[in-house]
Amino acid sequence: MRKVDLNSDIGEGFGPWVMGDDAGLLEVITSANIACGFHAGDPDVMAATMALAQARGVGLGAHPGFPDLQGFGRRRLALSHREIRNMITYQLGAAQAMARAAGGQLRHLKLHGALSNMACEDAELARVCFEAALRIQPDLVILVQPQTAMDQVVRDLGCAWAGEIFADRAYNDDATLMDRKAPGSVLHDPTEIAARMLEMLRAGAIIAQSGKHIPCRIDTICVHGDTAGALSVARTLRQTLEAAQITIAPL
Amino acid sequence: MRKVDLNSDIGEGFGPWVMGDDAGLLEVITSANIACGFHAGDPDVMAATMALAQARGVGLGAHPGFPDLQGFGRRRLALSHREIRNMITYQLGAAQAMARAAGGQLRHLKLHGALSNMACEDAELARVCFEAALRIQPDLVILVQPQTAMDQVVRDLGCAWAGEIFADRAYNDDATLMDRKAPGSVLHDPTEIAARMLEMLRAGAIIAQSGKHIPCRIDTICVHGDTAGALSVARTLRQTLEAAQITIAPL
Amino acid sequence: MRKVDLNSDIGEGFGPWVMGDDAGLLEVITSANIACGFHAGDPDVMAATMALAQARGVGLGAHPGFPDLQGFGRRRLALSHREIRNMITYQLGAAQAMARAAGGQLRHLKLHGALSNMACEDAELARVCFEAALRIQPDLVILVQPQTAMDQVVRDLGCAWAGEIFADRAYNDDATLMDRKAPGSVLHDPTEIAARMLEMLRAGAIIAQSGKHIPCRIDTICVHGDTAGALSVARTLRQTLEAAQITIAPL
Amino acid sequence: MRKVDLNSDIGEGFGPWVMGDDAGLLEVITSANIACGFHAGDPDVMAATMALAQARGVGLGAHPGFPDLQGFGRRRLALSHREIRNMITYQLGAAQAMARAAGGQLRHLKLHGALSNMACEDAELARVCFEAALRIQPDLVILVQPQTAMDQVVRDLGCAWAGEIFADRAYNDDATLMDRKAPGSVLHDPTEIAARMLEMLRAGAIIAQSGKHIPCRIDTICVHGDTAGALSVARTLRQTLEAAQITIAPL
Repeated sequence: MRKVDLNSDIGEGFGPWVMGDDAGLLEVITSANIACGFHAGDPDVMAATMALAQARGVGLGAHPGFPDLQGFGRRRLALSHREIRNMITYQLGAAQAMARAAGGQLRHLKLHGALSNMACEDAELARVCFEAALRIQPDLVILVQPQTAMDQVVRDLGCAWAGEIFADRAYNDDATLMDRKAPGSVLHDPTEIAARMLEMLRAGAIIAQSGKHIPCRIDTICVHGDTAGALSVARTLRQTLEAAQITIAPL
Repeated sequence: MRKVDLNSDIGEGFGPWVMGDDAGLLEVITSANIACGFHAGDPDVMAATMALAQARGVGLGAHPGFPDLQGFGRRRLALSHREIRNMITYQLGAAQAMARAAGGQLRHLKLHGALSNMACEDAELARVCFEAALRIQPDLVILVQPQTAMDQVVRDLGCAWAGEIFADRAYNDDATLMDRKAPGSVLHDPTEIAARMLEMLRAGAIIAQSGKHIPCRIDTICVHGDTAGALSVARTLRQTLEAAQITIAPL
Repeated sequence: MRKVDLNSDIGEGFGPWVMGDDAGLLEVITSANIACGFHAGDPDVMAATMALAQARGVGLGAHPGFPDLQGFGRRRLALSHREIRNMITYQLGAAQAMARAAGGQLRHLKLHGALSNMACEDAELARVCFEAALRIQPDLVILVQPQTAMDQVVRDLGCAWAGEIFADRAYNDDATLMDRKAPGSVLHDPTEIAARMLEMLRAGAIIAQSGKHIPCRIDTICVHGDTAGALSVARTLRQTLEAAQITIAPL
Repeated sequence: MRKVDLNSDIGEGFGPWVMGDDAGLLEVITSANIACGFHAGDPDVMAATMALAQARGVGLGAHPGFPDLQGFGRRRLALSHREIRNMITYQLGAAQAMARAAGGQLRHLKLHGALSNMACEDAELARVCFEAALRIQPDLVILVQPQTAMDQVVRDLGCAWAGEIFADRAYNDDATLMDRKAPGSVLHDPTEIAARMLEMLRAGAIIAQSGKHIPCRIDTICVHGDTAGALSVARTLRQTLEAAQITIAPL
């Protein structure tokens, strides 16, 4: 493993409200998952975020979610496949235009929140999402949580994709994320997080909390942006990986 | 005058709510101005509308408006130029993707409601709107109300544009629309409307209620879709024009 | 059975969009379930609806639903009990004030759409909804689908409640509504519907499609307002019941 | 002047987004203007804010604004008087219920943002707002910017009202606030702000930047909550006033 991407959810403000230190993170990460206006982000937030990411050479990505601003896209909403398809198409198109207005173009897609969780469990839903996106932009790189329902779908579709692990979350033996409420499920210490990521990259595997190795493709590491200390985690991670001769580069 | 386009505002439902007889109108008109989700339309309504218009060979157009669903984009909202620009970019991008998903592509842009009224009065605002749209799709045909602030802007921009007159509205001597509340300002009789349109097309001029001729380019006629009798007006107009050897064709 | 109430969902327009023939229905029904702005209705629609219902002597009721305008409150949304409680409180308070501004006051509460369906299945959820409402207005009459989870909750709470049956829907043997997609699940013939309601009122029981009688309290009959022929069904039902010496009166 | 109230705009978060240090301010102020869900605040934010304010003994107030979340109610929106009236009624009713659920009740009303600015300029609009609120709760104390259009309206209505000055804003000679963009229009130094407020209270007058005294009733001082240093300003102001034997008490 000589190369990896660092991604983060970015542009998650709305109107007067700010979330996270986007400007700080954009100096460290290489791919930005930009909210598309349904769960967060509005056209002005998107424009500012796209411009900043583009200026920093950070890869632009669409981060579509459920139309639930109050719930930040984290509450499950029972939509039909048709509704999901149209919602993805709409948000992706909006993000494409915002990227173009900023002088750039979208490179990747990452599903947000409850929509992502549902697509990890339901291959049919994942397929609906990814097909809708690829129909609009066939060269999009799809971010995929390894060993979930998403995994087989992108292989079947034959599209470009990137395997993603999470920097600050502990894993179960089946490669799912441990419940946030379980002790030790969310990591906070930058040094510990960086060492753990380095270990997984070298192993080419997710290493569960039990120690079990789950071999998978790791192309990108997600650094959360909306938590205290996020920037510190991102910086320490980047330094640790670079010190280990791993190139940090966009997808 | 041998050729004219018929346009109508279409896809103005939202969620469970229907507005107008889109399917009927799409058999008569040649250009559809499709709501983009801010003042009306949602991704599902847009998808269905795009598919139907595309199947009928009707030209697809974006019809962006203010983010005011309750007010249907008809209430003036004091936005900055930056906010206007981003709002246009976002809606246009969403509409482009929905058009692509329906197997088509956008051909034109028409501003909606209060945004359109304001752009008729304020050249700087019109320029912000049109530049934002053309930056995303340079070959868009911009619908323009002749003799308004929009008019000079499109000439300055050197972009493709189409002069538009309204089938059912009386005009003042300065080419603005008469106030809806003034007697005689809104026409209802299909035969009268059709005869009046034919007269304007032959004269190459808007004919004000006073009888004054205001020479201008007439490329398209707007038929309102959300009023009772809209379909009857559209049909009679089309038949009358065709009987007069005027070709009805998309922009 | 000498007396029954007729209720209908009313005020389900939004902004420029109309749903159903509210003015017509309000001449026939005796209780109006008025949308509170989250799944349908906006302050202007609510004001007009409250005024009209009040002028007709129709009982005013709050009809709260999920914050999902596009989905009309019919899509399940995974909210916490806290979120449900606050959402009910907010909508009920808004409806109380709108009723007061119209010179009236709320008499009843009926849950809408997916929220109602979920509360029929989940007693804990039903309790959260009803307790939130009763905390704000202790004398509210709660509309209850007999034999569902709602049923025991209102008995435990000791509050005023009314058992409700649906005029145009066939029932399963366990008193649940037959799936809308099943043949014969939705009735359309006014005469048949009226005869069936009369039979249930006389039997003091829901009569399932199988013929099974499920004894229950029937205080009110729901007439749907958003379907074609709704007004005709309501009128025929009212005439049939009155001809059978059953008084139609508010809760 | 022996007694004054300190008020602040509170509960201006939405969904996952936080604004200001409400918990800190609620330990200093005596009246809370709580956003009602249209420009900020959602039912969950409102519930938490009401509960916290009630626990601190801070007076609960409704702070209704335009239905423009993205613009935070700061963008002018051209609504009819009917729309304004219904919007006020709806938000006030929701706030009443949320207050009741928190074990309290509303005491005052303060208009927010662009709606407030417009009501300062337009007596008819101010009257529509205040009459709508008083119709629902006749004993509400209306917060009024002295010497503006609001001033005469509350005198004509004969309702309870409170004259309000702003802690951190410079005034023009006509008692209007200086434009935020003008140098010196927004004050930041806590000591200077506190001294200036004390001077105005003792003078029983707004003191314009020119030094001109504009006699008026001063019942409450607004401390902004959404700016850096807001809490420090509030604390210094309270200490300074108390040291001068002025009682800080709710309206």
